[in-house]
Formats: sequence, C-alpha cells, structure tokens
Amino acid sequence: MNAPIICISREFGSGGRLIGEQLATALGIPFYDRLIIEKAAEESGLSPEFIEQEEQRFNNSMLFNLSMGSHAVTAAGVDLSSRVFEAERQAILEAAQAGSCVIVGRCADYILRHREDLFTVFISADIDWRVNRAVSVYGLAENKAEKAIRAKDKQRARHYNFYSDRNWGDRANYDIILNSSRLGIEGCVDLLLHAINTK
Amino acid sequence: MNAPIICISREFGSGGRLIGEQLATALGIPFYDRLIIEKAAEESGLSPEFIEQEEQRFNNSMLFNLSMGSHAVTAAGVDLSSRVFEAERQAILEAAQAGSCVIVGRCADYILRHREDLFTVFISADIDWRVNRAVSVYGLAENKAEKAIRAKDKQRARHYNFYSDRNWGDRANYDIILNSSRLGIEGCVDLLLHAINTK
Repeated sequence: MNAPIICISREFGSGGRLIGEQLATALGIPFYDRLIIEKAAEESGLSPEFIEQEEQRFNNSMLFNLSMGSHAVTAAGVDLSSRVFEAERQAILEAAQAGSCVIVGRCADYILRHREDLFTVFISADIDWRVNRAVSVYGLAENKAEKAIRAKDKQRARHYNFYSDRNWGDRANYDIILNSSRLGIEGCVDLLLHAINTK
Repeated sequence: MNAPIICISREFGSGGRLIGEQLATALGIPFYDRLIIEKAAEESGLSPEFIEQEEQRFNNSMLFNLSMGSHAVTAAGVDLSSRVFEAERQAILEAAQAGSCVIVGRCADYILRHREDLFTVFISADIDWRVNRAVSVYGLAENKAEKAIRAKDKQRARHYNFYSDRNWGDRANYDIILNSSRLGIEGCVDLLLHAINTK
C-alpha cells in the first residue's frame, strides 16, 4: 500500500518512539510526537508547556480526584484535560488529513479509527530490558526505574481507556504488536517497513 | 537466525493454523498440529481419539466440575486431563528437540519457554471476519458462529491459563501478534518469514 497513517502506541521504555521516528525517516514522512503538542497549542491558544504539563498531570491529579469524589476539583480537572484532549484531537485529525505520517501515542489510533489507510502498531518489551533502557537512556535511578515504568504504563492506559471505549494494549486494537526486546529496535523498524511496503 | 522453534497460538477462525502450515512449508520444516496428538498417543499408550476428545472436553466437563465443587468427578477429570497434558508436553519437548518446527497451540510456547531459539506468535482477527470464515471454511451455522467462536476462544484461554502461569493472548507472552483479518493470511506468512529470515 501507499505509506499509510501509522499510529504507534507503546509501553514506556520499549523504544516505541524511536521505532516510530526511524520508520518515518525511512519512509520520508512526517513524525508527530512533540509536534502534536505544538500543533495543538497553535490551534487552541494554550501554551505548549501547559499542554505538556496536562499530559503528565492526567493520572496524578484528575483520576485521583475522580476516585476521591472531589467534585469541585474534578470538574475543573476534567474541563482542562478535555480541552487539551480536544486540541490534540484536532491536531491529529489535521496531521492525518495532510497525508501519510507516523503519530505516537495520544489515542491517535482511536481518533483516526474510521480511516481506511490506518496502520496501528503497539510496541511492548520485557520489563528487565525496559528497566535497563530506562536507566541507560533516560537516566532513571536503577532502584526506582521499574516502579516508574509501571506507573507510566498505568498512566497511558488510564488516559487511553478514559478517552476511548477500548483497552490500551489490547490486541483487538492493533494490526501488529511487536516485542522490541526480543526483535530489536532495528528489527521492529525493518518488520514494519516490510509490512507497509508489501501490503 | 536459523529457522527456530515457532509456536503459534491463535484465536478460533483467525487462520492461525493455516498460517503455521504455510510457514512450515515455506521453511521446509515439520508442522505439528494433529501430529502432536499422534506423538502423544504413541508415548502414552492413550488412543489418539481419546486424546482428541479430552482436548475438547477440557472446558466442558473438568472446569464445570471444578466450579461446582464436584470433587469425585473433579479428581478423575483432573487426572485424565493431566495425563493428556503430560503426554502432549512430552511430545512437544521431543518435537522441539528434533529440530526447527512449527507447533500450533497446546501451550507449546509455555512448555518450551526456556529455549533460546523460540519464536512465539499469536494470531488474532476481527470477529466479523472470523464469523465469515467460520461459516465459509468450517460450515458453522451463521446464527451460531459468533457464539461458537467465543466459546472456543474461552476454552483455549482456560486451558492455557490452567496449565501455565500466564494469560492466553497476553502480549507479554509473544514476540509478535498479527491481526490476520487486516494483514491477510498471506501477509502474515510473509511477515513471519521475513522476521525469521532477518533475525
């Protein structure tokens, strides 16, 4: 097929972002990760820094407030979070409308689910490998890395499950799920390229 | 890598067995599906027909008895089921020991988990596609196909989860998960060949 709209979801530390970046480079198409934040900021008038903070905050504040039944804070939290989601949703729709690209995270596979040229990917990896990578690549403390990774995955899952009617990482959502610790980062890029070029 | 031991798990109606068969043919290596039953029968002295019946029975009788707390029947049920599992386990260990091959189902990925030359695959597919395939390929009645498919998946999951410490279909168990309704049967075979030949 022609290079499609490729949406990549990934476990933290799996190298999914890097795989997406290398795939986009190999295909000569735009790569959207932080660029979605920039586009969402332009659209909405919110600052990129604020959007980025809201992305991080989602798990820590809003869902905690929801679970505690703190309605006043919740209403404000939902409102802010929804504004950011809506701004990013618009940015994702526009990015896809402009042509073939790679988009990482941000429920893009769900937002674009009605497009026929969608190729949906999930990258997972064994936890030990992710811990090593989080320490060596992201500089996380060795004794805190696993906890941080699991917390980040939980955050991603909650965000995705909150804004979609799906479960993050559920095989039903994706065309292909690759384990990067067993296939290698380059192996994953190569396999995805092969899948796209021969489809 | 050299052609490895390839274990394929699959949702019912996804074409996973067919993908395994075509992959084995393309690689020129043995394909074990019903052959595992034959080998297990030789090993154990149980008849192939009895083993096949036990495979089907697992969900219907044993777990029902377990859930009902019917201890006398349960003990006999567990014993028979365990004998079949053990016979198949030995057959799978021997098949893998003899060299590269494709093995479908029967917890082979779990039984062989300590081998370094293991390549673990799960094939899933969208439910509508599986229903169509179950009707056209297996001759299931159209109004009963979806229920039968979901029951069969549940049976496979229970069997796998009972004999392993894992969850059937969980992405953590597999090197690669492919959606055959979106990638096509041939597309899946081609991707798996590519993964194996370039690893």
